[in-house]
Amino acid sequence: MTTPYEIRPIGYVRSPLVDRETAPKQGFEGAPDAWLVFNPGVAEGLRDLAVGADVFVLTWLHQSQRDVLAVHPRDDPRNPETGVFSTRSQDRPNPIGLHRVHIAAIEGPRVLVRDLEAFDGTPIVDVKPVLAGGR
Amino acid sequence: MTTPYEIRPIGYVRSPLVDRETAPKQGFEGAPDAWLVFNPGVAEGLRDLAVGADVFVLTWLHQSQRDVLAVHPRDDPRNPETGVFSTRSQDRPNPIGLHRVHIAAIEGPRVLVRDLEAFDGTPIVDVKPVLAGGR
Repeated sequence: MTTPYEIRPIGYVRSPLVDRETAPKQGFEGAPDAWLVFNPGVAEGLRDLAVGADVFVLTWLHQSQRDVLAVHPRDDPRNPETGVFSTRSQDRPNPIGLHRVHIAAIEGPRVLVRDLEAFDGTPIVDVKPVLAGGR
Repeated sequence: MTTPYEIRPIGYVRSPLVDRETAPKQGFEGAPDAWLVFNPGVAEGLRDLAVGADVFVLTWLHQSQRDVLAVHPRDDPRNPETGVFSTRSQDRPNPIGLHRVHIAAIEGPRVLVRDLEAFDGTPIVDVKPVLAGGR
């Protein structure tokens, strides 16, 4: 049950955010617009995305530490240490980022989104529709 | 930007669901309760999970086809073919499952959840809290 699996990025984030010191902790706390730049090979999978929709974007937080199991939430030492699976810490065993974003524009294989707190160059691994009830 | 990354499962799903023909398409459509069985090595990360909370569980849908970019949603040929990134199809380039579930019980490194539509044996890759607004 511990076979590793291979994530193959389908694109990357183009954003003015360059490091974790300056990035907001969550997109809805004031992240700038960002472009999702997809590999041409996955264009067919994007064809039904629509401007105005909210989607979940999954990323691979490649600057993370994977051996961390407890953190002070929001990198604030005043917050009590908490198990990572009760936080959105980027440091965790499998550093997958889950971001709910709003699609503002689509230009071929590039998608402009609001409220994405990922750094420039972050690999994208998936995009999913938001279902009823925010699921 | 196409460097592969390695997912290392942190546990697996123990569920009465055994194949895609009999499983519901979404957990809230009537999935049975399931146990999340975590590896002992990640127990510290679980310590703040609480009965009664909703969390996102991320899985690796290991029975999926990764070369699929368009599908008939819900495996129903009457539904028009749709780009996978506008569907929750398990067949997609990086078959990560995103499941919002309700924690019903916790017994050490085993967590009982409601509404999980994953098959028995599905690897678990992450658990995250649900933030305000279902994010």
